[in-house]
Amino acid sequence: MTSFAFAQAESSPASAIKPYTIKGSQVVDIHSQANGKDYELFIKLPRSFHHTEQQYPLVLVNDADYAFPLISSITRQLGDHGKKIEEVVLVGVSYSKGDNGGLSRTRDYTPTPSPYEKGGHSDAARRASGQSAKYIRFLADEVLPYLSEHYRIHPHKKIFVGHSFGGLLGASILFDQPEAFDYYILGSPSLWYDNKVIFEVESRYAKQHKTLDAQVMMVIGEYENGKPHSHFTMVDDMLAFEQKLESRDYAGLAVTTKVVPEEYHVSVFPTLITDGLLWAIPRSTPQ
Amino acid sequence: MTSFAFAQAESSPASAIKPYTIKGSQVVDIHSQANGKDYELFIKLPRSFHHTEQQYPLVLVNDADYAFPLISSITRQLGDHGKKIEEVVLVGVSYSKGDNGGLSRTRDYTPTPSPYEKGGHSDAARRASGQSAKYIRFLADEVLPYLSEHYRIHPHKKIFVGHSFGGLLGASILFDQPEAFDYYILGSPSLWYDNKVIFEVESRYAKQHKTLDAQVMMVIGEYENGKPHSHFTMVDDMLAFEQKLESRDYAGLAVTTKVVPEEYHVSVFPTLITDGLLWAIPRSTPQ
Repeated sequence: MTSFAFAQAESSPASAIKPYTIKGSQVVDIHSQANGKDYELFIKLPRSFHHTEQQYPLVLVNDADYAFPLISSITRQLGDHGKKIEEVVLVGVSYSKGDNGGLSRTRDYTPTPSPYEKGGHSDAARRASGQSAKYIRFLADEVLPYLSEHYRIHPHKKIFVGHSFGGLLGASILFDQPEAFDYYILGSPSLWYDNKVIFEVESRYAKQHKTLDAQVMMVIGEYENGKPHSHFTMVDDMLAFEQKLESRDYAGLAVTTKVVPEEYHVSVFPTLITDGLLWAIPRSTPQ
Repeated sequence: MTSFAFAQAESSPASAIKPYTIKGSQVVDIHSQANGKDYELFIKLPRSFHHTEQQYPLVLVNDADYAFPLISSITRQLGDHGKKIEEVVLVGVSYSKGDNGGLSRTRDYTPTPSPYEKGGHSDAARRASGQSAKYIRFLADEVLPYLSEHYRIHPHKKIFVGHSFGGLLGASILFDQPEAFDYYILGSPSLWYDNKVIFEVESRYAKQHKTLDAQVMMVIGEYENGKPHSHFTMVDDMLAFEQKLESRDYAGLAVTTKVVPEEYHVSVFPTLITDGLLWAIPRSTPQ
């Protein structure tokens, strides 16, 4: 085969390319009043949805270009087929349209501006950081009401899922609008962000509240602490955060954690989704 | 909101529904000469593909409506972003067009007819069972040449992935066309099928061959043995199969197994993909 033909085969015209679509999924445009950005919601209903009148748990996930396809396969196998967990309405929130993913997640998932943060995304992303308060309003006051209006969402089984910056976002929701969700699955949360500012946020919350009505599961990979003497102490940070929460004795709060053996920051997400959903919405009927 | 409006919101016209598409993926139609059926190949190239001239490992997976979205997220995070594994060309083989998934996988993934098999799919599926020899010809003589012609596939890094009946299919390939792939990641293989006929297939192969040139990893969930006194002994079967292979001392064969704690048949797949790819194509350069 000549290299010319080879090149042709690899670059067929865009019009001829049929992308892979996830069956039963749909994409809905949504404009955020809270921050003026445009997003998409990726929605997948369980197989039984149109044959029942029941209410379903909601699984809402961020970083959705990665997480939505993955979780859609896991909930299909573990729920619709395997009956180990309840069937769910799965919703992914896209990055803001027209924006770089790293910028979108830095702006929307972090609680405070930290323009010189080490280990973040681009300079532009870091300059835009610290606007999660608006994004939380978007989720709580716009996305969740939209979903509850259009689908049969169980009012006490709303599950937030986030990883890394998305886990930090979940922690921020806990101290801002804890009632927005019932279960929080926080994977490898970036508690290190901005000199561990989330611990200060928690302290302020503790001074004014005796109640924190939420079920929280935090999961992280064993290898996320980094090498000895490294600056990464993510496992230690997570366990310290658990201890801090436990020490407050908040009414309504339950926290559980898991350090998954032999997993990295970039590998632990599928495991934490499986473990988190088995924890939040186990199927009561034996298979 | 009235229930009428509620019903309307849930059943918007199909034309208005925009499904979720996996970015960078494409679907290619392929007709099998071997069995006369029509299939689709779901293809995802790594981000770097069009910016390099290098050859990439191939990950070929069956049960692709489940596996393709899931693995596409895992390889993106673990490979393209995380640099823990090499970047790969991911290819899923669909069920045959127009056929029920249970029928398609029973027909194509099982080595012998077993119309009265317990625990299989529908009666129709069981009646169609036992035609994997044709499907293996389709994969080896049609799909792989097509992929090697159109993409830069590394000739010694072709990875087969299958789970359950798909794991049984992989075992059948080992004794039919072992050279078709270099690595075999066999998840929860259905070695119980047809009175464990795969052990007889292996025995026949052993009588005629001293060589079996393949790297094999078998992974299963701890809970797949079923309760005490259950007929399910899948973990035991897998370990017995490993011992049998080791006892032959085939030239060229390396077998490794893993029993994953706290995992079920319907939950272990994401873990075995991560573990299998870290085993087959670890990235040599440290991050």
